[in-house]
Amino acid sequence: MNLKMYVFVTGKVMIILGALMLIPVITGLIYQEYDNVLVYIITAAFSLIAGFLISLKKPSYTKIFLKDSLVITALSWIVMSLIGCIPFIMTGEIPSFTNAMFETVSGFTTTGASILSNVEGLSHISLLWRSLTHWIGGMGVLVFLLAVVPMAGGTNMNLMRAESPGPSVGKLVPKVRSTAKALYLIYLALTILEIVVLILCRMPVFDSLCTAFGTAGTGGFGIKNDSFASYSPLIQWVVTVFMILFGVNFNFYYLVITRQIVKSLKMEEVRAYFLIVIGSAIVIAINIYHIYGNVKDALRHSFFQVATVITTTGFATTDFDQWPTLSKCIMVMLMFVGACAGSTGGGIKVARLLMRIKTFTREIDSCIHPNNIKTIQIDGKPVDNDTIRSVNAFCMTFVAVFSLSLLIISIEGHDLITSFTAIAATINNIGPGLALVGPTANYGFFSILSKWVLIFDMLAGRLELFPLIIFLFPGTYKSSLRSKISKLVR
Amino acid sequence: MNLKMYVFVTGKVMIILGALMLIPVITGLIYQEYDNVLVYIITAAFSLIAGFLISLKKPSYTKIFLKDSLVITALSWIVMSLIGCIPFIMTGEIPSFTNAMFETVSGFTTTGASILSNVEGLSHISLLWRSLTHWIGGMGVLVFLLAVVPMAGGTNMNLMRAESPGPSVGKLVPKVRSTAKALYLIYLALTILEIVVLILCRMPVFDSLCTAFGTAGTGGFGIKNDSFASYSPLIQWVVTVFMILFGVNFNFYYLVITRQIVKSLKMEEVRAYFLIVIGSAIVIAINIYHIYGNVKDALRHSFFQVATVITTTGFATTDFDQWPTLSKCIMVMLMFVGACAGSTGGGIKVARLLMRIKTFTREIDSCIHPNNIKTIQIDGKPVDNDTIRSVNAFCMTFVAVFSLSLLIISIEGHDLITSFTAIAATINNIGPGLALVGPTANYGFFSILSKWVLIFDMLAGRLELFPLIIFLFPGTYKSSLRSKISKLVR
Repeated sequence: MNLKMYVFVTGKVMIILGALMLIPVITGLIYQEYDNVLVYIITAAFSLIAGFLISLKKPSYTKIFLKDSLVITALSWIVMSLIGCIPFIMTGEIPSFTNAMFETVSGFTTTGASILSNVEGLSHISLLWRSLTHWIGGMGVLVFLLAVVPMAGGTNMNLMRAESPGPSVGKLVPKVRSTAKALYLIYLALTILEIVVLILCRMPVFDSLCTAFGTAGTGGFGIKNDSFASYSPLIQWVVTVFMILFGVNFNFYYLVITRQIVKSLKMEEVRAYFLIVIGSAIVIAINIYHIYGNVKDALRHSFFQVATVITTTGFATTDFDQWPTLSKCIMVMLMFVGACAGSTGGGIKVARLLMRIKTFTREIDSCIHPNNIKTIQIDGKPVDNDTIRSVNAFCMTFVAVFSLSLLIISIEGHDLITSFTAIAATINNIGPGLALVGPTANYGFFSILSKWVLIFDMLAGRLELFPLIIFLFPGTYKSSLRSKISKLVR
Repeated sequence: MNLKMYVFVTGKVMIILGALMLIPVITGLIYQEYDNVLVYIITAAFSLIAGFLISLKKPSYTKIFLKDSLVITALSWIVMSLIGCIPFIMTGEIPSFTNAMFETVSGFTTTGASILSNVEGLSHISLLWRSLTHWIGGMGVLVFLLAVVPMAGGTNMNLMRAESPGPSVGKLVPKVRSTAKALYLIYLALTILEIVVLILCRMPVFDSLCTAFGTAGTGGFGIKNDSFASYSPLIQWVVTVFMILFGVNFNFYYLVITRQIVKSLKMEEVRAYFLIVIGSAIVIAINIYHIYGNVKDALRHSFFQVATVITTTGFATTDFDQWPTLSKCIMVMLMFVGACAGSTGGGIKVARLLMRIKTFTREIDSCIHPNNIKTIQIDGKPVDNDTIRSVNAFCMTFVAVFSLSLLIISIEGHDLITSFTAIAATINNIGPGLALVGPTANYGFFSILSKWVLIFDMLAGRLELFPLIIFLFPGTYKSSLRSKISKLVR
C-alpha cells in the first residue's frame, strides 16, 4: 500500500476540481448572481489550496499496484463528490447534505437522477456546475490527471483501467499519457462541435453549454422541468445524434482520425451498438405509432428515448412510462445493455454483451462438436481467458450489488417497478426509471437510507463495481496494517 | 447421430408412460368415472403398443454422444407431453390442444402453472393423472429408463446428465444404473412416507396421494381452487417440511443412508440451502407479522411460501401478491435461486449460486493478491474450469432465453410485473407469479402465442436449457445430414 501516492493523487484531483469550479463562476458573473459566485470562489479556493498543500511533495516512489489504483480511484471520486456538493449546500439551493450529495454524485457519475422537483428554480451558476459535473465525470478526472501529470508506467495503466468504463481498456497509442491526451482531445472537440451546432439550431447559448456537457458525459441533468419536451424537433434530433455519438467507443474516433477507416468500420462492438439502437428504435416506433399518430413524431420520440437510455444519458422528450408494455420492456433491457466500452456511457456495455453472446454460441457449438472447442474472438483477435473471467465476475458482482440494493430499498415499501427501475437507473447511470421514478418524476421522496444506497449504486456503476467494493472491503487494508504494525513492534 | 437410438429410447419412454397411465385408471374405477377410464385405457394402450413396436429391436450400436443425448432428452419430453395431453382433450375437460399441452407440460416439468380457473371441476382420474405427471417429471423418465434398461456406459452418463438438474451430476456409486436405481428408491420411499404422514394427519387418501405426488416432484398442481388455504395448519406444516426435503440434493440422503453422516453434514450446498430457507422465512415473517397479527400464523405462512417458491413447487396457503414489497422482492429472488442441484426442484440451483459467489470472492481476492489466485473449491474439492465455464454459459443462456421470452410475451401488453413473473414462474418451474399470474390467478388469459412461449420456457427450464436449444438448433443436424447425403451420392 503506497499511502503517500493516495494522498498525492487525491491532492492533484482536488486542484483540478478547484480549477474547473471556476468555470461556472464566469456564468455567475454574467448573470450577476454575486452571492452564489462568492460561494463557488470560496469552495474552489479551498479545494485548490488544500489540494496544493497535500500534494506539494511528489512521492519518490510513484509505483502502485492494482489494488492501490482501485482504492485511489474510489477515494478520488468520494473526495470529488464531497467537495462538489459544498456549493449546493452553502447557497442554500439544496440545504440537506444527503440531497446535495445525491445530486453531486448523480452529476459526476453521469447518472442525471435528481432530487429536485423544480430544476428551473436553481441559479444559473449552479445549473452550469451541475451540468459541468457530468462533463468532468464522463471521461474521468483521473484520466485527465494522467494526461497532465507524468507518473510511473504501471501506475498510469492501473489508474486508467480502474477509472475507464469497459472490460479491456485498449491503449490507443503505446504511451498511456498520450492515450489520455488523445481521449480528452476527442472528447473536447466533440463537445465544442455540439455546442456550435446547437447554437446554430437557435438554442440559447447557456442552454447549449449545459446540454452539450450533459450529452458529452452521457449525464442527463436537464435545465428545464420538462427536460427536452419543449425544445424544437430539430434540436431534439441534434441531441439524439450526439447522444449516440458519445456512446460510441472512442477508439473508433481515434481510428477515423488516424485514417484507419477500414479498421474502424470493422469494430464489432460499434456495429452491434448501432444495430441495437436502430433495431430497438424501429420496433418501438411501430409499437408507439398509435400514440403520436404520425411516423415523424413516433420516430423522433423512439430514437431520442432509445438513444437516451442505451447511452445512459437520461434526457427525455416524452414520458415513456406511458408507452405500451413491449416498448417499456425494450427500454428496461436497454438500461442494462448500456453504451460501448471506452465511451462515456454506463451500463453493462455492448462489449461485455458481445462476449457473453459469443460464450453462449461457443457453448452450443461445444455440445455439437465437443472435440473442437473454438476460442472466442472479437475484431479478429482472440479474447484471453482473464478477460472472459473478469466479464463473468463483473456480471456476477453486478447481480449481487443489484439484489442487495433492491432488498434494502424495498424495505421502504414502494411498488416493485419503482424499486427495481430506481436501482437499474442508478447503477447503470441513466437517471429516469419507471413508475414513481419515471421521466417526469424525481428521486426526492426516497428515505435517507435509500438515497445512500442509490448514491452507492451510482458510484459503483460508474466505477464498474470493483473500485468501490475493494475500497470498502476490510481485507484490503489488513495485510498492509499487519506489516505496518509488525514494523512498529520490531 | 445415432438415429436408431433416438427411436429406441423414445419407444421405451412411451412404454413407461403407457404403464404409468394405468395408475389413474384405478382411481377412475373407484370413483366410477367409467367414460374417462375408457379414454385413459385407450391412450395408455396406444402408448404401450406404439412404444413397443418402435423399440422392438434394440440397436446393435447403443453408444451415443453428448449431442445425441441432449436431442433424445428433448425429444422424449416432447413425445411424453404430446401423449400425456391426449386424455385431457378426449375427455373434453380441456378441449383446446394448446391448453391441454400447457397443462401437461406444466405437469411433467413440475411447474404447476394451470390454465384452469375451476380445478375442482375436473374428474378424479384427471386430477390424479395431473398430479402424477409431476411425480413422473420430478425425477425424470429417462433416469427411470436408465434404472431398468441396460445400455452402454457412456450412453447412460450422457442421458443422466442431460435430464438431471444441476451443474455437475455426481454419481452416487460408480455404476450409472445403480445410481439411477438408488435415486428412484429414495424418491419412492420419501413419497410413500409423505402419503402416510398426510393420511395420519387426517387428510383424505385421494388428497394425500395428489399432494404427495405434487410435493415430491416439486410440482404444485393443487386439487382445490384455493390450493392449500383450506387445509389444517398441521397439514400445511407437514407439506412445508416435505417440500423442503424434496428440494435437498439427493446425494445427501444417499450419504445419510450409507451412514456417511459427517460427510453429509458438510455438504456446502445443502447448508447454504437451509440457511437461505430459514433466513428468508424469518425476515418475511417479521415483515408480514402485522397482516396476520400473531407469530404462529406469520411463521406458518412465511415458511410455507418460502418453501414453495425456493423448491419451485408452487402450492400456496395465502396470496403473497398482497404482501409488502420487501417480502415480494425476496419471493421473486427465491424464484431464481431454486432448489439444490440433484433434487427434483427447478430454478438456477443453489450449487450454481454458490459457485458464482465463490467466483466473486475469488475475483475480489485476486484484486488484492494478484499473484496468488486460488482455485474454487466446493465440499473441499476443487471445481474444474469446465464446470465453471458451463455454469457461466448456463447463466448467460438463461438471461438470453428469459429476455427473448419477455419481449414476445410483452407484445400482448399486460403489465410488466405480470409479464416478468409469468416468465420467471415458468422458466424456473414454479407456477404462480405476481399480479395477473399471482397465487390466486391462472394462466388461461394468455394468447396462444404467449402460451407456447411459456410451454417452451417450462420445458427449457426443466431440462436446463441446452437440450431444447440443441434440439431446435439447425446446426445440430447439418453435419450428419451432409455426411448422409454425401454417402448417398457416392
